[in-house]
Amino acid sequence: MTVTTLTPNQVQTYLAEIFPQFDATITHIDRDGATLELPTNERHLRPGGTVSGPTLMALADAAMYVAILGNLGKVALAVTTNLNINFYRKPLPGRLRAEARILKMGARLAVGDVLIYSEGLDDSVAHVTLTYSIPPNSEATD
Amino acid sequence: MTVTTLTPNQVQTYLAEIFPQFDATITHIDRDGATLELPTNERHLRPGGTVSGPTLMALADAAMYVAILGNLGKVALAVTTNLNINFYRKPLPGRLRAEARILKMGARLAVGDVLIYSEGLDDSVAHVTLTYSIPPNSEATD
Amino acid sequence: MTVTTLTPNQVQTYLAEIFPQFDATITHIDRDGATLELPTNERHLRPGGTVSGPTLMALADAAMYVAILGNLGKVALAVTTNLNINFYRKPLPGRLRAEARILKMGARLAVGDVLIYSEGLDDSVAHVTLTYSIPPNSEATD
Amino acid sequence: MTVTTLTPNQVQTYLAEIFPQFDATITHIDRDGATLELPTNERHLRPGGTVSGPTLMALADAAMYVAILGNLGKVALAVTTNLNINFYRKPLPGRLRAEARILKMGARLAVGDVLIYSEGLDDSVAHVTLTYSIPPNSEATD
Repeated sequence: MTVTTLTPNQVQTYLAEIFPQFDATITHIDRDGATLELPTNERHLRPGGTVSGPTLMALADAAMYVAILGNLGKVALAVTTNLNINFYRKPLPGRLRAEARILKMGARLAVGDVLIYSEGLDDSVAHVTLTYSIPPNSEATD
Repeated sequence: MTVTTLTPNQVQTYLAEIFPQFDATITHIDRDGATLELPTNERHLRPGGTVSGPTLMALADAAMYVAILGNLGKVALAVTTNLNINFYRKPLPGRLRAEARILKMGARLAVGDVLIYSEGLDDSVAHVTLTYSIPPNSEATD
Repeated sequence: MTVTTLTPNQVQTYLAEIFPQFDATITHIDRDGATLELPTNERHLRPGGTVSGPTLMALADAAMYVAILGNLGKVALAVTTNLNINFYRKPLPGRLRAEARILKMGARLAVGDVLIYSEGLDDSVAHVTLTYSIPPNSEATD
Repeated sequence: MTVTTLTPNQVQTYLAEIFPQFDATITHIDRDGATLELPTNERHLRPGGTVSGPTLMALADAAMYVAILGNLGKVALAVTTNLNINFYRKPLPGRLRAEARILKMGARLAVGDVLIYSEGLDDSVAHVTLTYSIPPNSEATD
Protein backbone atom coordinates (compact mmCIF):
# COMPACT_ATOMS: atom_id res chain seq x y z
CA MET A 1 0.00 0.00 0.00
CA THR A 2 1.19 3.49 -0.77
CA VAL A 3 1.09 5.80 2.24
CA THR A 4 1.50 9.53 1.79
CA THR A 5 3.48 11.12 4.56
CA LEU A 6 2.29 14.67 3.84
CA THR A 7 -0.80 15.93 2.02
CA PRO A 8 -0.53 18.38 -0.90
CA ASN A 9 -1.91 21.11 1.36
CA GLN A 10 0.66 20.46 4.06
CA VAL A 11 3.51 20.53 1.53
CA GLN A 12 2.08 23.66 -0.13
CA THR A 13 2.00 25.45 3.23
CA TYR A 14 5.50 24.27 4.09
CA LEU A 15 6.85 25.43 0.72
CA ALA A 16 5.20 28.82 1.04
CA GLU A 17 7.17 29.29 4.27
CA ILE A 18 10.57 28.36 2.87
CA PHE A 19 10.10 29.51 -0.77
CA PRO A 20 7.91 32.63 -0.54
CA GLN A 21 8.30 33.10 -4.31
CA PHE A 22 7.07 29.57 -5.12
CA ASP A 23 4.01 30.04 -7.34
CA ALA A 24 3.26 26.49 -8.51
CA THR A 25 0.29 24.50 -7.25
CA ILE A 26 0.69 20.92 -6.04
CA THR A 27 -2.17 18.91 -7.53
CA HIS A 28 -1.07 15.41 -6.55
CA ILE A 29 1.48 13.80 -4.27
CA ASP A 30 2.17 10.25 -3.14
CA ARG A 31 5.19 8.11 -2.29
CA ASP A 32 5.94 7.50 -5.97
CA GLY A 33 5.85 11.08 -7.21
CA ALA A 34 4.08 14.42 -7.45
CA THR A 35 2.31 16.65 -9.96
CA LEU A 36 2.66 20.44 -10.00
CA GLU A 37 1.00 23.09 -12.16
CA LEU A 38 2.37 26.53 -12.94
CA PRO A 39 0.41 29.33 -14.62
CA THR A 40 2.99 31.17 -16.74
CA ASN A 41 2.93 34.92 -17.30
CA GLU A 42 5.03 37.61 -19.01
CA ARG A 43 7.92 37.10 -16.63
CA HIS A 44 8.31 33.44 -17.76
CA LEU A 45 8.26 34.18 -21.49
CA ARG A 46 11.06 34.54 -23.99
CA PRO A 47 11.12 36.42 -27.30
CA GLY A 48 8.82 34.52 -29.66
CA GLY A 49 6.31 33.80 -26.91
CA THR A 50 7.88 30.58 -25.64
CA VAL A 51 8.35 29.77 -21.97
CA SER A 52 11.97 30.20 -20.87
CA GLY A 53 14.20 27.22 -20.17
CA PRO A 54 14.96 28.33 -16.58
CA THR A 55 11.21 28.37 -15.87
CA LEU A 56 10.97 24.71 -16.92
CA MET A 57 14.08 23.80 -14.91
CA ALA A 58 12.80 25.56 -11.78
CA LEU A 59 9.43 23.83 -12.10
CA ALA A 60 11.05 20.39 -12.53
CA ASP A 61 13.34 21.04 -9.56
CA ALA A 62 10.35 21.99 -7.39
CA ALA A 63 8.35 18.96 -8.57
CA MET A 64 11.13 16.58 -7.60
CA TYR A 65 11.60 18.32 -4.25
CA VAL A 66 7.88 18.00 -3.55
CA ALA A 67 8.00 14.30 -4.48
CA ILE A 68 10.84 13.81 -1.97
CA LEU A 69 8.90 15.66 0.72
CA GLY A 70 5.90 13.46 -0.03
CA ASN A 71 8.09 10.41 0.40
CA LEU A 72 10.29 11.37 3.34
CA GLY A 73 8.42 14.13 5.13
CA LYS A 74 10.02 17.52 5.73
CA VAL A 75 13.65 17.42 4.58
CA ALA A 76 14.47 21.07 4.30
CA LEU A 77 18.12 20.46 3.60
CA ALA A 78 17.87 18.14 0.60
CA VAL A 79 19.81 19.77 -2.24
CA THR A 80 19.92 19.20 -5.98
CA THR A 81 23.28 17.77 -7.05
CA ASN A 82 22.52 16.95 -10.69
CA LEU A 83 19.89 18.08 -13.18
CA ASN A 84 19.77 16.98 -16.81
CA ILE A 85 17.11 18.45 -19.09
CA ASN A 86 16.17 17.81 -22.71
CA PHE A 87 14.00 20.45 -24.38
CA TYR A 88 12.29 18.91 -27.41
CA ARG A 89 9.05 20.76 -28.07
CA LYS A 90 8.31 24.47 -27.83
CA PRO A 91 6.03 25.10 -24.84
CA LEU A 92 3.10 27.42 -25.45
CA PRO A 93 2.18 30.32 -23.20
CA GLY A 94 -0.33 29.04 -20.63
CA ARG A 95 -0.35 26.50 -17.85
CA LEU A 96 2.56 24.05 -17.42
CA ARG A 97 2.21 20.66 -15.70
CA ALA A 98 5.15 18.73 -14.23
CA GLU A 99 4.85 15.04 -13.39
CA ALA A 100 7.68 13.86 -11.13
CA ARG A 101 8.42 10.16 -10.60
CA ILE A 102 10.73 8.82 -7.89
CA LEU A 103 13.11 6.20 -9.31
CA LYS A 104 15.16 5.64 -6.16
CA MET A 105 14.69 6.98 -2.66
CA GLY A 106 17.94 6.06 -0.95
CA ALA A 107 19.41 7.02 2.39
CA ARG A 108 21.87 9.40 0.76
CA LEU A 109 20.62 10.06 -2.78
CA ALA A 110 17.19 10.41 -4.36
CA VAL A 111 16.86 10.00 -8.14
CA GLY A 112 13.81 10.82 -10.21
CA ASP A 113 12.60 12.15 -13.51
CA VAL A 114 10.03 14.73 -14.52
CA LEU A 115 7.96 15.12 -17.68
CA ILE A 116 6.75 18.64 -18.45
CA TYR A 117 3.55 19.27 -20.37
CA SER A 118 2.29 22.53 -21.87
CA GLU A 119 -1.42 23.38 -21.94
CA GLY A 120 -2.77 22.67 -25.41
CA LEU A 121 -0.20 20.02 -26.36
CA ASP A 122 -0.76 16.29 -25.81
CA ASP A 123 2.92 15.32 -25.87
CA SER A 124 5.47 16.35 -23.28
CA VAL A 125 7.76 19.30 -24.08
CA ALA A 126 10.75 18.50 -21.86
CA HIS A 127 12.20 15.64 -19.82
CA VAL A 128 14.31 16.21 -16.73
CA THR A 129 16.37 13.81 -14.61
CA LEU A 130 17.38 14.93 -11.13
CA THR A 131 19.50 13.75 -8.24
CA TYR A 132 19.06 15.16 -4.75
CA SER A 133 21.53 14.63 -1.94
CA ILE A 134 19.89 13.80 1.40
CA PRO A 135 21.97 15.09 4.30
CA PRO A 136 23.28 12.32 6.60
CA ASN A 137 21.68 13.80 9.72
CA SER A 138 18.35 14.36 7.99
CA GLU A 139 15.48 13.65 10.33
CA ALA A 140 12.34 12.78 8.44
CA THR A 141 9.63 14.45 10.51
CA ASP A 142 5.95 14.77 9.86
CA MET B 1 -3.36 3.95 -34.45
CA THR B 2 0.18 2.79 -33.82
CA VAL B 3 1.80 1.14 -36.85
CA THR B 4 5.09 -0.68 -36.52
CA THR B 5 7.34 -0.14 -39.48
CA LEU B 6 9.60 -3.11 -38.78
CA THR B 7 9.02 -6.29 -36.79
CA PRO B 8 11.39 -7.37 -33.99
CA ASN B 9 12.69 -10.15 -36.26
CA GLN B 10 13.41 -7.76 -39.10
CA VAL B 11 15.27 -5.38 -36.77
CA GLN B 12 17.13 -8.29 -35.14
CA THR B 13 18.31 -9.49 -38.55
CA TYR B 14 19.26 -5.98 -39.61
CA LEU B 15 21.24 -5.40 -36.42
CA ALA B 16 23.07 -8.71 -36.74
CA GLU B 17 24.30 -7.47 -40.12
CA ILE B 18 25.58 -4.12 -38.94
CA PHE B 19 26.53 -5.02 -35.33
CA PRO B 20 27.84 -8.61 -35.51
CA GLN B 21 28.72 -8.40 -31.81
CA PHE B 22 25.18 -7.40 -30.79
CA ASP B 23 24.02 -10.08 -28.35
CA ALA B 24 20.76 -8.62 -26.98
CA THR B 25 17.34 -9.97 -27.96
CA ILE B 26 14.54 -7.65 -29.06
CA THR B 27 11.40 -8.79 -27.29
CA HIS B 28 9.08 -5.93 -28.21
CA ILE B 29 9.03 -3.02 -30.60
CA ASP B 30 6.44 -0.46 -31.64
CA ARG B 31 6.34 3.23 -32.61
CA ASP B 32 6.55 4.32 -28.98
CA GLY B 33 9.51 2.25 -27.87
CA ALA B 34 11.25 -1.11 -27.65
CA THR B 35 12.27 -3.73 -25.09
CA LEU B 36 15.57 -5.62 -25.22
CA GLU B 37 16.97 -8.38 -23.05
CA LEU B 38 20.62 -9.22 -22.50
CA PRO B 39 21.94 -12.36 -20.81
CA THR B 40 25.06 -11.21 -18.96
CA ASN B 41 28.14 -13.37 -18.52
CA GLU B 42 31.67 -13.12 -17.08
CA ARG B 43 32.70 -10.54 -19.64
CA HIS B 44 30.02 -8.09 -18.41
CA LEU B 45 30.87 -8.43 -14.71
CA ARG B 46 32.95 -6.24 -12.43
CA PRO B 47 34.76 -7.15 -9.22
CA GLY B 48 32.09 -7.87 -6.62
CA GLY B 49 29.85 -9.60 -9.16
CA THR B 50 28.02 -6.54 -10.40
CA VAL B 51 27.34 -5.82 -14.07
CA SER B 52 29.68 -3.14 -15.46
CA GLY B 53 28.44 0.38 -16.20
CA PRO B 54 29.52 0.23 -19.86
CA THR B 55 27.37 -2.90 -20.30
CA LEU B 56 24.31 -0.97 -19.10
CA MET B 57 25.18 2.01 -21.29
CA ALA B 58 25.66 -0.15 -24.37
CA LEU B 59 22.36 -1.91 -23.76
CA ALA B 60 20.49 1.38 -23.31
CA ASP B 61 22.11 2.79 -26.45
CA ALA B 62 21.02 -0.29 -28.43
CA ALA B 63 17.49 -0.16 -27.00
CA MET B 64 17.03 3.46 -28.08
CA TYR B 65 18.48 2.71 -31.52
CA VAL B 66 16.06 -0.19 -31.93
CA ALA B 67 13.16 2.06 -30.88
CA ILE B 68 14.20 4.59 -33.55
CA LEU B 69 14.41 1.83 -36.17
CA GLY B 70 10.95 0.66 -35.13
CA ASN B 71 9.66 4.17 -35.59
CA LEU B 72 11.49 5.33 -38.71
CA GLY B 73 12.57 2.16 -40.47
CA LYS B 74 16.21 1.52 -41.30
CA VAL B 75 18.26 4.59 -40.42
CA ALA B 76 21.73 3.17 -40.33
CA LEU B 77 23.36 6.55 -39.88
CA ALA B 78 21.53 7.78 -36.79
CA VAL B 79 24.18 8.54 -34.17
CA THR B 80 24.06 9.09 -30.42
CA THR B 81 24.87 12.70 -29.56
CA ASN B 82 24.03 12.68 -25.83
CA LEU B 83 23.66 9.98 -23.21
CA ASN B 84 22.97 10.65 -19.55
CA ILE B 85 22.82 7.72 -17.13
CA ASN B 86 22.03 7.46 -13.43
CA PHE B 87 23.09 4.24 -11.71
CA TYR B 88 21.09 3.83 -8.51
CA ARG B 89 20.82 0.14 -7.68
CA LYS B 90 23.42 -2.59 -8.02
CA PRO B 91 22.42 -4.93 -10.85
CA LEU B 92 22.70 -8.64 -10.13
CA PRO B 93 24.38 -11.15 -12.41
CA GLY B 94 21.72 -12.57 -14.74
CA ARG B 95 19.42 -11.23 -17.41
CA LEU B 96 19.03 -7.47 -17.96
CA ARG B 97 15.93 -5.88 -19.51
CA ALA B 98 15.91 -2.43 -21.11
CA GLU B 99 12.64 -0.60 -21.79
CA ALA B 100 13.11 2.30 -24.19
CA ARG B 101 10.47 5.00 -24.63
CA ILE B 102 10.48 7.55 -27.46
CA LEU B 103 9.80 11.06 -26.10
CA LYS B 104 10.26 12.94 -29.38
CA MET B 105 10.83 11.65 -32.89
CA GLY B 106 11.80 14.77 -34.79
CA ALA B 107 13.17 15.30 -38.26
CA ARG B 108 16.66 16.03 -36.91
CA LEU B 109 16.73 14.77 -33.31
CA ALA B 110 15.17 11.82 -31.51
CA VAL B 111 14.94 11.92 -27.70
CA GLY B 112 14.02 9.04 -25.44
CA ASP B 113 14.68 7.40 -22.13
CA VAL B 114 15.42 3.85 -21.03
CA LEU B 115 14.80 2.06 -17.74
CA ILE B 116 17.05 -0.90 -17.03
CA TYR B 117 15.89 -3.83 -14.89
CA SER B 118 17.96 -6.66 -13.45
CA GLU B 119 16.55 -10.19 -13.13
CA GLY B 120 15.46 -10.75 -9.54
CA LEU B 121 14.83 -7.09 -8.69
CA ASP B 122 11.43 -5.43 -9.06
CA ASP B 123 12.72 -1.88 -9.22
CA SER B 124 14.80 -0.46 -12.02
CA VAL B 125 18.59 -0.25 -11.51
CA ALA B 126 19.46 2.58 -13.91
CA HIS B 127 17.79 5.32 -15.93
CA VAL B 128 19.22 6.61 -19.20
CA THR B 129 18.25 9.59 -21.35
CA LEU B 130 19.49 9.63 -24.95
CA THR B 131 19.51 11.95 -27.94
CA TYR B 132 20.16 10.65 -31.43
CA SER B 133 20.91 12.87 -34.39
CA ILE B 134 19.07 11.87 -37.57
CA PRO B 135 21.11 12.74 -40.66
CA PRO B 136 19.42 15.31 -42.95
CA ASN B 137 19.49 13.04 -46.00
CA SER B 138 18.19 10.03 -44.07
CA GLU B 139 15.78 8.01 -46.16
CA ALA B 140 13.40 6.01 -44.01
CA THR B 141 13.02 2.77 -45.95
CA ASP B 142 11.20 -0.36 -45.04
CA MET C 1 44.35 33.67 -35.24
CA THR C 2 41.14 34.03 -33.35
CA VAL C 3 38.78 36.60 -34.84
CA THR C 4 35.81 37.83 -32.84
CA THR C 5 32.73 38.37 -34.94
CA LEU C 6 30.98 40.60 -32.39
CA THR C 7 32.36 42.68 -29.52
CA PRO C 8 31.06 42.29 -25.96
CA ASN C 9 29.33 45.67 -26.32
CA GLN C 10 27.60 44.65 -29.54
CA VAL C 11 26.38 41.39 -27.99
CA GLN C 12 25.31 43.19 -24.80
CA THR C 13 23.24 45.65 -26.83
CA TYR C 14 21.76 42.84 -28.94
CA LEU C 15 20.83 40.83 -25.84
CA ALA C 16 19.22 43.83 -24.16
CA GLU C 17 16.93 44.07 -27.19
CA ILE C 18 15.85 40.43 -27.19
CA PHE C 19 16.13 39.65 -23.44
CA PRO C 20 15.08 42.87 -21.67
CA GLN C 21 15.35 41.07 -18.33
CA PHE C 22 18.98 39.96 -18.99
CA ASP C 23 21.02 41.45 -16.14
CA ALA C 24 24.43 39.79 -16.58
CA THR C 25 27.46 41.65 -17.89
CA ILE C 26 29.61 40.21 -20.67
CA THR C 27 33.24 40.72 -19.65
CA HIS C 28 34.95 38.69 -22.35
CA ILE C 29 34.06 37.06 -25.64
CA ASP C 30 36.03 35.38 -28.39
CA ARG C 31 35.56 32.48 -30.82
CA ASP C 32 36.41 29.93 -28.11
CA GLY C 33 34.07 31.13 -25.38
CA ALA C 34 32.73 33.94 -23.24
CA THR C 35 32.73 35.17 -19.64
CA LEU C 36 29.70 36.70 -17.95
CA GLU C 37 29.23 38.20 -14.49
CA LEU C 38 25.99 38.43 -12.57
CA PRO C 39 25.49 40.48 -9.38
CA THR C 40 23.01 38.44 -7.33
CA ASN C 41 20.36 39.99 -5.11
CA GLU C 42 17.46 38.92 -2.90
CA ARG C 43 15.51 37.61 -5.86
CA HIS C 44 18.25 35.04 -6.64
CA LEU C 45 18.60 33.73 -3.10
CA ARG C 46 17.18 30.64 -1.43
CA PRO C 47 16.51 29.96 2.23
CA GLY C 48 19.91 29.72 3.93
CA GLY C 49 21.36 32.52 1.84
CA THR C 50 22.52 30.40 -1.09
CA VAL C 51 21.97 31.34 -4.74
CA SER C 52 19.15 29.32 -6.33
CA GLY C 53 19.85 26.56 -8.83
CA PRO C 54 17.71 28.16 -11.56
CA THR C 55 19.83 31.32 -11.28
CA LEU C 56 22.98 29.28 -12.00
CA MET C 57 21.26 27.45 -14.86
CA ALA C 58 19.99 30.67 -16.43
CA LEU C 59 23.45 32.24 -16.17
CA ALA C 60 25.12 29.19 -17.76
CA ASP C 61 22.54 29.14 -20.54
CA ALA C 62 23.16 32.83 -21.27
CA ALA C 63 26.95 32.36 -21.19
CA MET C 64 26.79 29.57 -23.77
CA TYR C 65 24.41 31.60 -25.94
CA VAL C 66 26.79 34.57 -25.82
CA ALA C 67 29.70 32.29 -26.75
CA ILE C 68 27.73 31.07 -29.78
CA LEU C 69 26.91 34.66 -30.79
CA GLY C 70 30.60 35.52 -30.45
CA ASN C 71 31.43 32.62 -32.73
CA LEU C 72 28.67 32.78 -35.33
CA GLY C 73 27.31 36.32 -35.16
CA LYS C 74 23.65 36.99 -34.50
CA VAL C 75 21.76 33.69 -34.42
CA ALA C 76 18.58 34.69 -32.67
CA LEU C 77 16.95 31.34 -33.20
CA ALA C 78 19.54 29.05 -31.63
CA VAL C 79 17.78 27.07 -28.90
CA THR C 80 19.02 24.98 -25.99
CA THR C 81 18.25 21.29 -26.52
CA ASN C 82 20.19 19.79 -23.58
CA LEU C 83 21.56 21.16 -20.32
CA ASN C 84 23.29 19.06 -17.69
CA ILE C 85 24.38 20.70 -14.44
CA ASN C 86 26.28 19.43 -11.42
CA PHE C 87 26.03 21.55 -8.27
CA TYR C 88 28.95 20.70 -5.97
CA ARG C 89 29.71 23.72 -3.79
CA LYS C 90 27.33 26.15 -2.14
CA PRO C 91 27.58 29.53 -3.88
CA LEU C 92 27.80 32.56 -1.61
CA PRO C 93 25.66 35.66 -2.00
CA GLY C 94 27.57 38.12 -4.19
CA ARG C 95 28.84 38.21 -7.74
CA LEU C 96 28.79 35.06 -9.91
CA ARG C 97 31.14 34.49 -12.86
CA ALA C 98 30.42 32.05 -15.69
CA GLU C 99 33.18 30.92 -18.04
CA ALA C 100 31.79 29.28 -21.17
CA ARG C 101 33.97 27.21 -23.48
CA ILE C 102 32.92 26.07 -26.97
CA LEU C 103 33.75 22.38 -27.50
CA LYS C 104 32.17 22.02 -30.94
CA MET C 105 30.63 24.64 -33.22
CA GLY C 106 28.91 22.55 -35.86
CA ALA C 107 26.50 23.44 -38.63
CA ARG C 108 23.55 21.96 -36.72
CA LEU C 109 24.69 21.59 -33.09
CA ALA C 110 26.91 23.60 -30.77
CA VAL C 111 28.31 21.92 -27.64
CA GLY C 112 30.08 23.64 -24.79
CA ASP C 113 30.60 23.67 -21.07
CA VAL C 114 30.48 26.37 -18.41
CA LEU C 115 32.21 26.65 -15.05
CA ILE C 116 30.49 28.88 -12.50
CA TYR C 117 32.44 30.70 -9.80
CA SER C 118 31.13 32.49 -6.74
CA GLU C 119 32.81 35.65 -5.42
CA GLY C 120 34.98 34.74 -2.45
CA LEU C 121 35.59 31.11 -3.46
CA ASP C 122 38.60 30.02 -5.52
CA ASP C 123 37.09 26.76 -6.75
CA SER C 124 34.13 26.51 -9.10
CA VAL C 125 30.70 25.84 -7.59
CA ALA C 126 28.94 24.23 -10.56
CA HIS C 127 29.69 22.71 -13.96
CA VAL C 128 27.25 22.83 -16.85
CA THR C 129 27.28 21.11 -20.24
CA LEU C 130 24.99 22.50 -22.95
CA THR C 131 23.89 21.67 -26.47
CA TYR C 132 22.29 24.27 -28.70
CA SER C 133 20.50 23.46 -31.92
CA ILE C 134 21.36 25.83 -34.77
CA PRO C 135 18.41 26.20 -37.16
CA PRO C 136 19.14 24.98 -40.72
CA ASN C 137 18.30 28.31 -42.33
CA SER C 138 20.32 30.30 -39.80
CA GLU C 139 22.05 33.22 -41.46
CA ALA C 140 25.09 34.31 -39.50
CA THR C 141 24.99 38.08 -39.86
CA ASP C 142 27.11 40.74 -38.24
CA MET D 1 51.87 22.05 -3.72
CA THR D 2 50.22 19.12 -5.39
CA VAL D 3 51.09 15.77 -3.81
CA THR D 4 50.27 12.54 -5.61
CA THR D 5 49.15 9.79 -3.28
CA LEU D 6 49.80 6.99 -5.76
CA THR D 7 52.11 6.83 -8.79
CA PRO D 8 50.78 5.85 -12.24
CA ASN D 9 52.59 2.51 -11.88
CA GLN D 10 51.01 1.79 -8.50
CA VAL D 11 47.54 2.60 -9.83
CA GLN D 12 48.17 0.59 -13.01
CA THR D 13 49.13 -2.46 -10.92
CA TYR D 14 46.16 -1.98 -8.63
CA LEU D 15 43.76 -1.71 -11.57
CA ALA D 16 45.19 -4.82 -13.24
CA GLU D 17 44.30 -6.72 -10.07
CA ILE D 18 40.71 -5.54 -9.84
CA PHE D 19 39.96 -5.00 -13.55
CA PRO D 20 41.87 -7.76 -15.36
CA GLN D 21 40.31 -6.62 -18.64
CA PHE D 22 41.50 -3.02 -18.22
CA ASP D 23 43.68 -2.29 -21.26
CA ALA D 24 44.28 1.47 -20.99
CA THR D 25 47.62 2.94 -19.98
CA ILE D 26 47.87 5.63 -17.31
CA THR D 27 50.27 8.27 -18.62
CA HIS D 28 49.76 10.95 -15.97
CA ILE D 29 48.16 11.27 -12.57
CA ASP D 30 48.10 13.96 -9.90
CA ARG D 31 45.64 15.33 -7.34
CA ASP D 32 43.84 17.37 -10.01
CA GLY D 33 43.29 14.66 -12.59
CA ALA D 34 44.67 11.88 -14.75
CA THR D 35 45.43 11.03 -18.37
CA LEU D 36 44.83 7.60 -19.90
CA GLU D 37 45.54 6.23 -23.36
CA LEU D 38 43.76 3.36 -25.06
CA PRO D 39 44.91 1.67 -28.27
CA THR D 40 41.68 0.72 -30.06
CA ASN D 41 41.29 -2.42 -32.14
CA GLU D 42 38.60 -4.29 -34.09
CA ARG D 43 36.62 -5.02 -30.94
CA HIS D 44 36.14 -1.28 -30.26
CA LEU D 45 35.00 -0.37 -33.76
CA ARG D 46 31.54 0.17 -35.21
CA PRO D 47 30.34 -0.15 -38.79
CA GLY D 48 31.93 2.71 -40.74
CA GLY D 49 35.22 2.38 -38.85
CA THR D 50 34.35 4.66 -35.93
CA VAL D 51 35.08 3.81 -32.30
CA SER D 52 31.95 2.70 -30.41
CA GLY D 53 30.26 4.94 -27.87
CA PRO D 54 30.56 2.38 -25.06
CA THR D 55 34.33 2.31 -25.62
CA LEU D 56 34.51 6.07 -25.05
CA MET D 57 32.23 5.84 -22.00
CA ALA D 58 34.28 3.02 -20.47
CA LEU D 59 37.51 4.94 -21.04
CA ALA D 60 36.08 8.11 -19.46
CA ASP D 61 34.77 6.13 -16.50
CA ALA D 62 38.20 4.57 -15.96
CA ALA D 63 39.97 7.93 -16.31
CA MET D 64 37.77 9.50 -13.62
CA TYR D 65 38.25 6.48 -11.36
CA VAL D 66 42.02 6.73 -11.76
CA ALA D 67 41.88 10.45 -10.95
CA ILE D 68 39.98 9.65 -7.74
CA LEU D 69 42.53 6.97 -6.82
CA GLY D 70 45.31 9.49 -7.45
CA ASN D 71 43.57 11.91 -5.13
CA LEU D 72 42.32 9.66 -2.34
CA GLY D 73 44.42 6.53 -2.55
CA LYS D 74 42.86 3.10 -2.99
CA VAL D 75 39.07 3.45 -2.80
CA ALA D 76 37.97 0.20 -4.33
CA LEU D 77 34.33 0.79 -3.57
CA ALA D 78 33.80 4.16 -5.22
CA VAL D 79 30.98 3.74 -7.75
CA THR D 80 29.76 5.84 -10.66
CA THR D 81 26.35 7.34 -9.93
CA ASN D 82 26.00 9.67 -12.94
CA LEU D 83 27.64 9.88 -16.35
CA ASN D 84 26.72 12.40 -19.01
CA ILE D 85 28.44 12.22 -22.40
CA ASN D 86 28.26 14.39 -25.49
CA PHE D 87 29.63 12.85 -28.69
CA TYR D 88 30.41 15.65 -31.16
CA ARG D 89 33.15 14.47 -33.49
CA LYS D 90 33.68 11.07 -35.07
CA PRO D 91 36.71 9.41 -33.49
CA LEU D 92 39.16 7.76 -35.88
CA PRO D 93 40.53 4.26 -35.48
CA GLY D 94 43.79 4.52 -33.50
CA ARG D 95 44.82 5.66 -30.07
CA LEU D 96 42.38 7.47 -27.78
CA ARG D 97 43.47 9.85 -24.99
CA ALA D 98 41.27 10.76 -22.03
CA GLU D 99 42.08 13.76 -19.85
CA ALA D 100 40.17 13.68 -16.56
CA ARG D 101 39.88 16.73 -14.33
CA ILE D 102 38.62 16.65 -10.74
CA LEU D 103 36.10 19.46 -10.12
CA LYS D 104 35.17 18.50 -6.57
CA MET D 105 36.61 15.85 -4.28
CA GLY D 106 34.10 15.73 -1.45
CA ALA D 107 33.68 13.36 1.45
CA ARG D 108 30.65 11.71 -0.18
CA LEU D 109 30.73 12.69 -3.86
CA ALA D 110 33.46 13.29 -6.41
CA VAL D 111 32.64 15.27 -9.56
CA GLY D 112 34.84 15.63 -12.61
CA ASP D 113 34.89 15.89 -16.36
CA VAL D 114 36.84 14.14 -19.10
CA LEU D 115 37.80 15.28 -22.59
CA ILE D 116 38.46 12.50 -25.10
CA TYR D 117 40.86 12.97 -27.99
CA SER D 118 41.36 10.74 -31.02
CA GLU D 119 44.81 10.26 -32.57
CA GLY D 120 45.08 12.46 -35.66
CA LEU D 121 42.53 15.06 -34.56
CA ASP D 122 43.48 18.25 -32.69
CA ASP D 123 40.05 18.90 -31.22
CA SER D 124 38.34 16.70 -28.66
CA VAL D 125 35.72 14.20 -29.88
CA ALA D 126 33.62 13.79 -26.73
CA HIS D 127 33.08 15.41 -23.34
CA VAL D 128 31.98 13.45 -20.28
CA THR D 129 30.85 14.59 -16.84
CA LEU D 130 30.90 12.03 -14.03
CA THR D 131 29.85 11.74 -10.41
CA TYR D 132 31.24 9.03 -8.16
CA SER D 133 29.81 8.15 -4.79
CA ILE D 134 32.43 7.62 -2.09
CA PRO D 135 31.24 5.07 0.49
CA PRO D 136 30.92 6.51 4.01
CA ASN D 137 33.29 4.00 5.57
CA SER D 138 35.88 4.41 2.83
CA GLU D 139 39.39 4.23 4.26
CA ALA D 140 41.87 5.98 2.01
CA THR D 141 44.91 3.72 2.24
CA ASP D 142 48.20 3.81 0.38
